[in-house]
Amino acid sequence: MRRIITLTTDFGTKDGYIGAVQGVILSINPQAQVMDITHQIPAQNIRSAALCILNYYSFFPEGTIHLAVVDPGVGGPRKPILIQSERYSFVGPDNGIFSLALQKEKFSKAIHLKNPKYFLGKISPTFHGRDIFAPVAAYLSLGVKPEEFGPRLSKLEKLKLPAVKEYPQKLVGEIIHIDNFGNLVTNVRRAELGDRQISRIKLKTKSIQNLSETFSDVKPGEGVAYVGSSGYVELGINRGNAAIKLKAKIADKVEFFL
Amino acid sequence: MRRIITLTTDFGTKDGYIGAVQGVILSINPQAQVMDITHQIPAQNIRSAALCILNYYSFFPEGTIHLAVVDPGVGGPRKPILIQSERYSFVGPDNGIFSLALQKEKFSKAIHLKNPKYFLGKISPTFHGRDIFAPVAAYLSLGVKPEEFGPRLSKLEKLKLPAVKEYPQKLVGEIIHIDNFGNLVTNVRRAELGDRQISRIKLKTKSIQNLSETFSDVKPGEGVAYVGSSGYVELGINRGNAAIKLKAKIADKVEFFL
Amino acid sequence: MRRIITLTTDFGTKDGYIGAVQGVILSINPQAQVMDITHQIPAQNIRSAALCILNYYSFFPEGTIHLAVVDPGVGGPRKPILIQSERYSFVGPDNGIFSLALQKEKFSKAIHLKNPKYFLGKISPTFHGRDIFAPVAAYLSLGVKPEEFGPRLSKLEKLKLPAVKEYPQKLVGEIIHIDNFGNLVTNVRRAELGDRQISRIKLKTKSIQNLSETFSDVKPGEGVAYVGSSGYVELGINRGNAAIKLKAKIADKVEFFL
Repeated sequence: MRRIITLTTDFGTKDGYIGAVQGVILSINPQAQVMDITHQIPAQNIRSAALCILNYYSFFPEGTIHLAVVDPGVGGPRKPILIQSERYSFVGPDNGIFSLALQKEKFSKAIHLKNPKYFLGKISPTFHGRDIFAPVAAYLSLGVKPEEFGPRLSKLEKLKLPAVKEYPQKLVGEIIHIDNFGNLVTNVRRAELGDRQISRIKLKTKSIQNLSETFSDVKPGEGVAYVGSSGYVELGINRGNAAIKLKAKIADKVEFFL
Repeated sequence: MRRIITLTTDFGTKDGYIGAVQGVILSINPQAQVMDITHQIPAQNIRSAALCILNYYSFFPEGTIHLAVVDPGVGGPRKPILIQSERYSFVGPDNGIFSLALQKEKFSKAIHLKNPKYFLGKISPTFHGRDIFAPVAAYLSLGVKPEEFGPRLSKLEKLKLPAVKEYPQKLVGEIIHIDNFGNLVTNVRRAELGDRQISRIKLKTKSIQNLSETFSDVKPGEGVAYVGSSGYVELGINRGNAAIKLKAKIADKVEFFL
Repeated sequence: MRRIITLTTDFGTKDGYIGAVQGVILSINPQAQVMDITHQIPAQNIRSAALCILNYYSFFPEGTIHLAVVDPGVGGPRKPILIQSERYSFVGPDNGIFSLALQKEKFSKAIHLKNPKYFLGKISPTFHGRDIFAPVAAYLSLGVKPEEFGPRLSKLEKLKLPAVKEYPQKLVGEIIHIDNFGNLVTNVRRAELGDRQISRIKLKTKSIQNLSETFSDVKPGEGVAYVGSSGYVELGINRGNAAIKLKAKIADKVEFFL
């Protein structure tokens, strides 16, 4: 059965770990279509993975299996899970990695992966990606029913993004992600602003006037705030790198004056 | 229809942007064969992308669709385009990214992508890769005719590589690209030399005697000049990194003594 | 014929070199399933590639063709080879890159790639990956018999890993690889320890008590020694980066007290 399995990890590629995951999947289901999304999530950074997944998962065809492994608790008490939403399956550790995506999904059921029949022989205590998650995703792609993999789970770990603070004259958010271009993703969602107009945005000593549509609404080298492709307000610099130029980092506060 | 779509971008992979592009393509044409060439083009570096495309595009089977997005002007006046040459299709922004490849192709026609029927619903002004280029490439792979996507364009943006200067006793070129091994690619093409013999090549204070065939023509650690696999003269160090050892950078002058 | 060809190189992706390799393969066999394992092997580091291959090759289905190019001797006297083991084919330079994997394989035969019929027209002396290895792998995937590619070879280059030194009270090994997480892979294999108990492990001034099963056997921030997924003893830090925290590097000595 030709079904897509996407892979998102913090493995890098140079050690051959992800090669092993790919090989396990194709050995179980040679028809599976393995799509590498990224193996460059910063090591052990669950939030970064959750934001990455949020950016792509819903663009894949219905039935796609999203496998993601950023797993600082491997071998410990955190549970290996399978989540089945209306349109997709998610396979990985129960540490909140899928929780931003699941906020947008009609939730269906979660399974605690316990049935060793679908694991890879002897389990390495340091490499569940290869020995548990890869074979489960592959068997799932072959049509094995979710219930076969283990018992239902009623509660999942959730990732907490820092809350936006609301004041009469302003909102105070923070930088939650810096992308490949140095754009600064804040925790303020467009939806959260509702009808309120932003008059000014301030990051440290740098001020940006209101929200623009896109980079080229300002001159090259100038700061710009816009709603990013995933719905969060972002700060950037037209044809420049905002993170470097503004010396910005994760958790820096951003003020949105109403 | 199983048709290859290659992807070359400066997106990196960690943010999930390229995952969205892959998902959009497979949602429209589940049979498309997506080949990731690179997502590591230096941010907003159109020349680097154009040289990369030049190095691989012609090795793919006829009918391959080359999608490339390095797009500092996204959302601004630069046009989204489709170019149809005798053997390939090229989809991306009209900023010269395909111009080095097109010098080698029998040019056929260029289309200004304007038909929203083939776009992804509401267009994000910062992410045409996902919302315009990916769906257009996918529909093209399904057999939609180029003319369906918009009107013909008669003029395309061109990338200007710095010119080689010719003197009676020497040519003066410059470094236009540094590859993964630290090899220094100059703007001097083998074809340009014709019958002329090079007696010496000079970069800053470093001299290299004539052109060799390959690295191992000189001793380990020694400098070597050779015609690279794409036809440009390159400077390297046998079993070493020329960029680091010679502290060379883009735009450094290289003298070729006749 | 749909056969898997895995790719492991030190090409990086940004220069389009690996794109050319992919294109050559698909031009010869459009049904080949190209799996990129990594193009991020440190430049010219054969040992790093050999350890990477060891980590993934055996997880792929029987019949998989493993193509690997880390090739500091390209264009020189080193031979281009094809090795056929009981389950897999290996294509690349004869420089030891496959030798760790081959220690685990039933060896079958080695071929010196000499038949230009299966090369790509004129051979670039600096790019055998594109002009020799890619087309040979592709023709092999189409069912061409190994003997067609050239004469048998009776002797192959081998990679020498540093030997573990045995003393009455201790073993002295060294760090042979540092992975993406900063874990320190030593040259001591679990199998090598046999029944002997390790009471203490010492790296510079840092001591780790005996072997654990996995990271979470120690507290976050603490050092841990464990048998890695490939069978070598590794040193790590639970939820941390051992290479950075311990300022460890390749070839650092590690003492294992019995």
